[in-house]
Amino acid sequence: MKRKIRMGMVGGGPGAFIGGVHRAASRLDGKIELVCGSFCTRPDANRSMAGELFIPEEKCYATYQEMFETESRLPEGERMDFVAITTPNSTHFPIAMAALEHGFHVLCEKPMTLSLEEAIALRAKVRETGLLFALMHNYSAYPMVRQMRKMIADGALGKLRKIVASYDLGWLAAPNAGKQATWRVSPKMSGAAACVGDIGTHAEQLIEFVTGLEITEVAADLATFVEGRQLDDDATVMLRFADGAKGVIELSEVACGEENQFKLRVYGSEGCLEWCQQEPENLVYKTNDSAMKTLRRGWAELDDSVKGLIRLPAGHPEGFFEAFANIYTDFANHIAARIDGVEYQGLYPNEETGVRGMNFIETVVASSKQNGAWLPLKKL
Amino acid sequence: MKRKIRMGMVGGGPGAFIGGVHRAASRLDGKIELVCGSFCTRPDANRSMAGELFIPEEKCYATYQEMFETESRLPEGERMDFVAITTPNSTHFPIAMAALEHGFHVLCEKPMTLSLEEAIALRAKVRETGLLFALMHNYSAYPMVRQMRKMIADGALGKLRKIVASYDLGWLAAPNAGKQATWRVSPKMSGAAACVGDIGTHAEQLIEFVTGLEITEVAADLATFVEGRQLDDDATVMLRFADGAKGVIELSEVACGEENQFKLRVYGSEGCLEWCQQEPENLVYKTNDSAMKTLRRGWAELDDSVKGLIRLPAGHPEGFFEAFANIYTDFANHIAARIDGVEYQGLYPNEETGVRGMNFIETVVASSKQNGAWLPLKKL
Amino acid sequence: MKRKIRMGMVGGGPGAFIGGVHRAASRLDGKIELVCGSFCTRPDANRSMAGELFIPEEKCYATYQEMFETESRLPEGERMDFVAITTPNSTHFPIAMAALEHGFHVLCEKPMTLSLEEAIALRAKVRETGLLFALMHNYSAYPMVRQMRKMIADGALGKLRKIVASYDLGWLAAPNAGKQATWRVSPKMSGAAACVGDIGTHAEQLIEFVTGLEITEVAADLATFVEGRQLDDDATVMLRFADGAKGVIELSEVACGEENQFKLRVYGSEGCLEWCQQEPENLVYKTNDSAMKTLRRGWAELDDSVKGLIRLPAGHPEGFFEAFANIYTDFANHIAARIDGVEYQGLYPNEETGVRGMNFIETVVASSKQNGAWLPLKKL
Amino acid sequence: MKRKIRMGMVGGGPGAFIGGVHRAASRLDGKIELVCGSFCTRPDANRSMAGELFIPEEKCYATYQEMFETESRLPEGERMDFVAITTPNSTHFPIAMAALEHGFHVLCEKPMTLSLEEAIALRAKVRETGLLFALMHNYSAYPMVRQMRKMIADGALGKLRKIVASYDLGWLAAPNAGKQATWRVSPKMSGAAACVGDIGTHAEQLIEFVTGLEITEVAADLATFVEGRQLDDDATVMLRFADGAKGVIELSEVACGEENQFKLRVYGSEGCLEWCQQEPENLVYKTNDSAMKTLRRGWAELDDSVKGLIRLPAGHPEGFFEAFANIYTDFANHIAARIDGVEYQGLYPNEETGVRGMNFIETVVASSKQNGAWLPLKKL
Repeated sequence: MKRKIRMGMVGGGPGAFIGGVHRAASRLDGKIELVCGSFCTRPDANRSMAGELFIPEEKCYATYQEMFETESRLPEGERMDFVAITTPNSTHFPIAMAALEHGFHVLCEKPMTLSLEEAIALRAKVRETGLLFALMHNYSAYPMVRQMRKMIADGALGKLRKIVASYDLGWLAAPNAGKQATWRVSPKMSGAAACVGDIGTHAEQLIEFVTGLEITEVAADLATFVEGRQLDDDATVMLRFADGAKGVIELSEVACGEENQFKLRVYGSEGCLEWCQQEPENLVYKTNDSAMKTLRRGWAELDDSVKGLIRLPAGHPEGFFEAFANIYTDFANHIAARIDGVEYQGLYPNEETGVRGMNFIETVVASSKQNGAWLPLKKL
Repeated sequence: MKRKIRMGMVGGGPGAFIGGVHRAASRLDGKIELVCGSFCTRPDANRSMAGELFIPEEKCYATYQEMFETESRLPEGERMDFVAITTPNSTHFPIAMAALEHGFHVLCEKPMTLSLEEAIALRAKVRETGLLFALMHNYSAYPMVRQMRKMIADGALGKLRKIVASYDLGWLAAPNAGKQATWRVSPKMSGAAACVGDIGTHAEQLIEFVTGLEITEVAADLATFVEGRQLDDDATVMLRFADGAKGVIELSEVACGEENQFKLRVYGSEGCLEWCQQEPENLVYKTNDSAMKTLRRGWAELDDSVKGLIRLPAGHPEGFFEAFANIYTDFANHIAARIDGVEYQGLYPNEETGVRGMNFIETVVASSKQNGAWLPLKKL
Repeated sequence: MKRKIRMGMVGGGPGAFIGGVHRAASRLDGKIELVCGSFCTRPDANRSMAGELFIPEEKCYATYQEMFETESRLPEGERMDFVAITTPNSTHFPIAMAALEHGFHVLCEKPMTLSLEEAIALRAKVRETGLLFALMHNYSAYPMVRQMRKMIADGALGKLRKIVASYDLGWLAAPNAGKQATWRVSPKMSGAAACVGDIGTHAEQLIEFVTGLEITEVAADLATFVEGRQLDDDATVMLRFADGAKGVIELSEVACGEENQFKLRVYGSEGCLEWCQQEPENLVYKTNDSAMKTLRRGWAELDDSVKGLIRLPAGHPEGFFEAFANIYTDFANHIAARIDGVEYQGLYPNEETGVRGMNFIETVVASSKQNGAWLPLKKL
Repeated sequence: MKRKIRMGMVGGGPGAFIGGVHRAASRLDGKIELVCGSFCTRPDANRSMAGELFIPEEKCYATYQEMFETESRLPEGERMDFVAITTPNSTHFPIAMAALEHGFHVLCEKPMTLSLEEAIALRAKVRETGLLFALMHNYSAYPMVRQMRKMIADGALGKLRKIVASYDLGWLAAPNAGKQATWRVSPKMSGAAACVGDIGTHAEQLIEFVTGLEITEVAADLATFVEGRQLDDDATVMLRFADGAKGVIELSEVACGEENQFKLRVYGSEGCLEWCQQEPENLVYKTNDSAMKTLRRGWAELDDSVKGLIRLPAGHPEGFFEAFANIYTDFANHIAARIDGVEYQGLYPNEETGVRGMNFIETVVASSKQNGAWLPLKKL
């Protein structure tokens, strides 16, 4: 990399949560610089955020349209290289389409769009432009998740049989859960599902990522426990996979008392692997004829492919930012390779992941509306 | 209690697992003595077991029929007071019926019978004879399970919303899992379901016991992962409860690498309680506005009703035998109260629990056969 | 074993803690029966305890002297085979001496005696009579402690370097900690040390048992945090071992908030083993070039010698009673072998362990009085 | 803060560990920019590191002297504001002295200097210049450590009695532990102690920081387990505190199998707090009359003063970098306040901490040389 990769941001204004996470993660490795942004549609808030970030006034754009137009007229090396989209779900599609049309690579928060239809259209645009698209499923970039994926691919579990994921948060347990909550349970801003879109897609993505299996059918039971909400705040989804494996995803955003309790267990004919997001440094490996192993980030028995995702020795805890940063750095490296005209194979989630996620959401919602009928995911 | 309560046993011959557990548990508190048995249909093995147990030859009966007949002719205080049935599922019904008909109280391994029809008939016999019947769902007698039940009844969780149980063992992961495995996957000896009957009923019983809620509907997906088996070795069951709560039970006996991993989480509008059978001394209590609490057996903040179930101070680990013994002691106390003509309110699982369990098994199996249709549990 | 081994008990009257533990543990395997006792010097309490235990009046003795004399006149098979001594420390010596003189094997609570001098005299008596003597250091009979010992003996840790034990309880944190507390901090009833005698000897015994190393020198700092106590309620003891290994024991009975937090870590040139009494089913094994292993009671990779100490499959928690029962059963087997004239090699702690413990206590106390000077343990 | 704070770095060349950690941590919050450096005394390596960091050639200085001289001639806002010193211990003193003499604030890796004498001289220079000095004891900036400190200050533990720290790593277990190991066991580069200086000072600093107590006396036993080393690779240090509290620090860098296992327990008359660096999100609070609490970063019951140290909601793991960054940000805020002429109260460790640490090291080494005699720390 000859220079830092230049990032613009849409969203992430004052009070937003995920925008700040993106910025911190993008800074961690010193390979990306935030050069411009359109952080908020309220001009004051927009300027105030730019000031906090030491972004010069002329690089603080009133709208994303203005940003894309202005930046696209600058020469490479002076204009932004990619845009990070950290707005609510409903605006991912138009912003990403506009960015691609102006020639910018895109890194987008999940879920990709508001509907499967939009996702397919966006994927078509990515293909058409040949630009890069990353979807922020950060959990898939934890080193121990990658280790899990590698071990499964290498056959440590034998033939896969049962996959069990649960993702529980308590933050929507009360009716009035604040500004962050409001847009997430609004069909207009969040899409066909709240809980299933917000955390269900994380589970679906991680399952398919680590197992290499495709979910073929789902049977779902969505629930809305807090009165007055238009969308689901809880769900259970039974799964069937192409090769006969089965599974279940248990989801709740009204799981009062839980922080961000995302757990994944994969069972095969020869053993089991277990990972919990709240203790991301551990990967537990059990079989019937050996003692339980806890593989630890940075310690022995890790696959070489995982080592590049690690910044600190074992016992010096890494966490959420580092996983996030792994996606950013992978994406930045890909952009740098493009600039240099070099081949590069990224492992970051992309437009295919995004279509898959929207496909999952819509099928799950349909199944629940049909009282839990088993429905196949579309072939797309 | 003026004398020890006298126990006879059917089953629990050489090589059997659960019979030995029953005997050790029955001994722990020194209130019960094993006075006779018909341990095995093979005469040699039967006698050999009696010898190991220091039971005199004349108290080692060739058949349970002989035992019930002979013992029933003895006066109270010399004859056995109750029989513990620890045979495979298929024989629970005839043995229990015969015992009741001869005037003996019955403590029976779960599941109660081979079919719901039998369970109903057995319950009728219990009612008719007025004798006592206990079903060995030992997990419900762990002190921290009782604490969980009490806290839920007292409203610590507010209105219940979501109940999540998982029960995973690896012991049937391989095709050839030994003698204990063989009868459990045989419809003739085990009934309509293997995994669902063996461990699913534990989950069902514990859920209803701790929450006080009734499961009203189930939607299930059973699986048989090891080729050649006639019954399920894995299942997922979605649940709906009378008052709008929902839940899921995830079950597997082919969960390679797991020991006896039974976990239960209950979420309500105000908090959550979590218990794991492999760490039975802990009960985790979480809410959105207080720090996580781990209540510990024998330590502070336990309900008075729990204290009678505890034999050792906190930090001196108790386990499976003690929970088992709590059922035995509760049952023995009830028998002693009968002898003394005193009222007694036991909390041990009984014939109602047994009918409920068989109802659950048959409805789950039916749902799975109908590709996961939601089916109501029968009102019985 | 042709008949049950017959046990008498001294101590363990109403309100006593450890006597009840001894009785329950002795019952667990069905090989030992309590046939007589002198539970309390208060006649009413003595009789009341005998009644609770269903012991006939004539077998409830007013004094231990009477018990030993009367029982010693009975023929083998009718008299008690051994006595369990569960009184406060101060009376261990006279009771054990009397028992041996009357020809009874002895199982005694720790510490063995009130002083090293007594311990040496008692050991001499054991040697002289040729009778069996067991000292109840139950922690050394946990299966995973035995596994730890075997792995160290087999070289899993290489050359041992550092041993770290901590044993913390909170029960004496407040000045008024009840009846159990009173005698433990009384020099007359407890001896030269309270905390060091009560729990320090457990640490010392376990360290020497699992490592096979001898402590050669100690440097100690005893403390009395609760005003008015005559003995230590807290201590730190630095250790040196014969072959150059070093260590430390950290002890407290005023560690407010702790239950029975006894932990042991052993480091060698090749790895480390770690065991915690409050989670006794786990043994953690770590090295620099392999993933952390958690060996589990009843699961894979256990040494054959450990399997005889296990009653339940993995995942069915065992605990304190079972470890206690392992000592009882080992001792009963030894007695049975004596009766049968058969050789037997027990692993239960014995009179040598007891002398060693008293040696440790007195040297630690002396070191602390000399402001932490390094003092050698006596060669005895 | 009107502009980013400008940092220069000495040390942190290719292959160095801690330099990279400093840089990543300094980047996390976007308030500090690395503007110049003298990373390595080998010119090639120096330039190569500057290139990797996108630092222009003219800002890559051959020596720290050149850097300080050149930068000191630039006006404020163009010159560096402070220097981060990440070289081996032996050079901390001359570099820090030179930086202060040229008017730069200093953030220095621990331990502060090679000897207590140097530390006192450096403290005098800090006082004389009035410049700011931070010492990188990052563990004291973990949010849950700060919570621990606050709770102790607020009396949650009552009167403190016993403090127990252990810090174990396995990285020096083998004789040939690599380049990082070599300088740490060299008296010339590391000072009077290796293990005690490297990790013992972390323990000492954290204990005094969280308890507010002063260690008054130490009695130590240092060990060198790997042959050929000139300095200690293991130690135990008993502690006495001003007000009668006692404690112990157990240290090892040859604890084969350990990662970075730093644990701290503090006991008082009313309860206990426990924190482990490898699980830094948890703070365990136990008392004798309430259930165990686990306070979690970002969750309920945290003191307001802690909230400013948190970047992510609970359940989104933070770790080592964030604690490190908390020191950097606190220091940068202090510098910004100086620029703005505003009062600021930082909590970062400073020159007093550094003198205290060197005082501890030298007293511990002296005690061990006198076979563990209790020695008082100097009043300085």
